[in-house]
Amino acid sequence: MKIIIIGATGTLGKKVAEAFASKHEIIRVGNTKGDVQVDITNETSIKNMFEHIGAFDALISTSGKGPFAPVNQLTGEVFKSGLLDKLLGQVNLVLIGQHYINKGGSFTLTSGILAESPVAAGSALSTINGGLNSFVLAAAPELGNGIRINAVSPNVVEDSPAYFESFPGEIPVSMEKVVKAYEKSVLGILTGKVIKVY
Amino acid sequence: MKIIIIGATGTLGKKVAEAFASKHEIIRVGNTKGDVQVDITNETSIKNMFEHIGAFDALISTSGKGPFAPVNQLTGEVFKSGLLDKLLGQVNLVLIGQHYINKGGSFTLTSGILAESPVAAGSALSTINGGLNSFVLAAAPELGNGIRINAVSPNVVEDSPAYFESFPGEIPVSMEKVVKAYEKSVLGILTGKVIKVY
Repeated sequence: MKIIIIGATGTLGKKVAEAFASKHEIIRVGNTKGDVQVDITNETSIKNMFEHIGAFDALISTSGKGPFAPVNQLTGEVFKSGLLDKLLGQVNLVLIGQHYINKGGSFTLTSGILAESPVAAGSALSTINGGLNSFVLAAAPELGNGIRINAVSPNVVEDSPAYFESFPGEIPVSMEKVVKAYEKSVLGILTGKVIKVY
Repeated sequence: MKIIIIGATGTLGKKVAEAFASKHEIIRVGNTKGDVQVDITNETSIKNMFEHIGAFDALISTSGKGPFAPVNQLTGEVFKSGLLDKLLGQVNLVLIGQHYINKGGSFTLTSGILAESPVAAGSALSTINGGLNSFVLAAAPELGNGIRINAVSPNVVEDSPAYFESFPGEIPVSMEKVVKAYEKSVLGILTGKVIKVY
């Protein structure tokens, strides 16, 4: 399988790429590093990436930023920056990528636990993750040619101790478990599902 | 109670305004009609509205547009227009309105059934509604001063027969039932909840 991994140079994407690399052809995409670069907030950049890579079998996105800020300090501009990055950016990977993906291919996006279990200062990310979860649910039945789409929704990961304090009471999940969720989405038969790792 | 109703000149907003009018002071806000006008996609317009109205006890939004389009025809620009209108527009009513609302006040936003039960051509609205549901969940615990926030998530309403065909198999709900959900949010004690009318 030819698998595009967006965010392949990040903490999570690197491990996901390693997991698939032995049996598949991996295109590692980063913002400034990797085999190919993309800015997911820019539609032209996304289109150029797909033109460069050509047809593919699976796309995994572990990419996208959203702001952490208390509600009483959040501004519309800051909130919008997250919507246009982690939410619309990943949606656009699908909207544009659907015209390049092979029959029977799959898209796997990344949302997160905040969609249903909020933390302080996380309301923008909760919104983004909730939106992504509903997007995969709604887009799945409309994609033709056996193309599938899922979201992996992880808890805070053991490898990111800097976030532990922001997620009080959560038991950090192992990177191995999170990586397995991407395998389940790409190699399995699920579609329209939110694969929760928590 | 002084209640601001955004979208008060629309099919739903009109009925909501009528239900509260006998016992409360209602400020009817529309895009071009009503007591006050606002463009919820414009932060300055929202700020001007609150400056004009001053302190209030409850805000109900029945406002916000999102596109209906099949996934294979959806573009990023069209998708974005919905995110910036029904999603960010309603979020901004809260982000800006929190600095004008009285202690013990409430915000009630409107999402919709598509968040969890998609229909053809509805993926953008599913995303928007899912985002709004997670937003109220996450914002509620951060709002101080006893301020509450909920979302009403209606099914297709009996009064909107033009939409029946787009929601196959759904039993349209009565306007009376939908209006009751707004009463539950504004006059009750719930916060951080999605009040489903389906």
